[in-house]
Amino acid sequence: MADEISTVMSACQGKIVLLRLRNTKTVQGTLIDFDIHMNLTLNNAEDISEEKHLSLGKILLRGDNILAISLPTD
Amino acid sequence: MADEISTVMSACQGKIVLLRLRNTKTVQGTLIDFDIHMNLTLNNAEDISEEKHLSLGKILLRGDNILAISLPTD
Amino acid sequence: MADEISTVMSACQGKIVLLRLRNTKTVQGTLIDFDIHMNLTLNNAEDISEEKHLSLGKILLRGDNILAISLPTD
Amino acid sequence: MADEISTVMSACQGKIVLLRLRNTKTVQGTLIDFDIHMNLTLNNAEDISEEKHLSLGKILLRGDNILAISLPTD
Amino acid sequence: MADEISTVMSACQGKIVLLRLRNTKTVQGTLIDFDIHMNLTLNNAEDISEEKHLSLGKILLRGDNILAISLPTD
Amino acid sequence: MADEISTVMSACQGKIVLLRLRNTKTVQGTLIDFDIHMNLTLNNAEDISEEKHLSLGKILLRGDNILAISLPTD
Amino acid sequence: MADEISTVMSACQGKIVLLRLRNTKTVQGTLIDFDIHMNLTLNNAEDISEEKHLSLGKILLRGDNILAISLPTD
Repeated sequence: MADEISTVMSACQGKIVLLRLRNTKTVQGTLIDFDIHMNLTLNNAEDISEEKHLSLGKILLRGDNILAISLPTD
Repeated sequence: MADEISTVMSACQGKIVLLRLRNTKTVQGTLIDFDIHMNLTLNNAEDISEEKHLSLGKILLRGDNILAISLPTD
Repeated sequence: MADEISTVMSACQGKIVLLRLRNTKTVQGTLIDFDIHMNLTLNNAEDISEEKHLSLGKILLRGDNILAISLPTD
Repeated sequence: MADEISTVMSACQGKIVLLRLRNTKTVQGTLIDFDIHMNLTLNNAEDISEEKHLSLGKILLRGDNILAISLPTD
Repeated sequence: MADEISTVMSACQGKIVLLRLRNTKTVQGTLIDFDIHMNLTLNNAEDISEEKHLSLGKILLRGDNILAISLPTD
Repeated sequence: MADEISTVMSACQGKIVLLRLRNTKTVQGTLIDFDIHMNLTLNNAEDISEEKHLSLGKILLRGDNILAISLPTD
Repeated sequence: MADEISTVMSACQGKIVLLRLRNTKTVQGTLIDFDIHMNLTLNNAEDISEEKHLSLGKILLRGDNILAISLPTD
């Protein structure tokens, strides 16, 4: 992840992001931190793929599982 | 992504691009930025794979999921 | 795994972590150590994917099999 | 892609190439440019996998999706 | 495989380790040596996935096939 | 591809090689050139997987699709 | 492939090795040479996966297809 993208991610710290994963799952949580491999730490993460959400707590998600990250737009 | 390709991508910033993904999905949006791994940020992104489009908002898409990018030709 | 993430992992040493793997298995154990590839050593590891847990003992798990790590929050 | 191969590709710029992809699709187009990862830009690209061809316009195709490139021989 | 993990592996040389592979097979043998890619050499290796064990003799196993290694704990 | 292997490949230039691919296809052609990634250029290439051979002409084949190359022995 | 493993492989040159591949095939042949990526050249190679063996002649096999190599022990 190069500088242009890193700036976008930094602006999302402390905000809720929605992750679409390569395994078709969808995970939502508050972005704490990230690194150049797009590894992310999230607070209050939830697997929201099914109607009944599954609480995951605080997680570290490996970047290579990510398809796309929906970013807050404000 | 080396220089030759980077120049092509730069010319598309602010324009609508269409992404064909390795998972067979098709995503459309306005290209904001990109990096050397072909990670992209898009505004007003939509999953247009199905007849009913799905709004994705502002997204960061990991480059390793991309099959091809259709570029505006103006 | 860059510095930001490494700090989070260090804080979990000696604590119980829960690993969701790319093969859909779930493994739990006490984190002993880790490296920059997210390779982990765990004590008293258990495969808790099925109702009947399977004891794995002390294991070294390759980082590239990991989807996400649920971290203790205290 | 090292020098020996790069020379072959350079000789194809401005000519029509046929790409066989790892996903079994076949794409044809006029080669504009390429980089060391075999990322290619094509003009007037068409997906010719099915009897009815699908126009793709100007595209940037990621090199890691390519199985083989049929090169013009003259 | 970084230093922390390498130390753990060194302590297992000459001991019996149990390998869970990404292809769901399980292999057991006496660890002779290893390298930074987690490539391993094993003596008296056996595929113990099925009830009837299959003797493999002395093998070199590529590290990228490994899911986890169960380590002797004493 | 390191030096030892490169020497073997050099000796095959101008000769017919048979490629077994990871997708189970078999391709035959006259080796023109190759690079360190095992990317190959072939003249008069043919897909000989089926009884009826399919002419591919001059091709550039990406090395990461190759399982094995049968080499002429004289 | 680091030094420890390289020494093991060197000791096998000129001897018959048995390769278990990731695609579940089994190949046997006399090891001629190898490189750091575990790319191998074999003489008198045979696919022995089926009861009826298939002669492959002299081959260059890409290392990333290998699961394990059974080594001669004397």
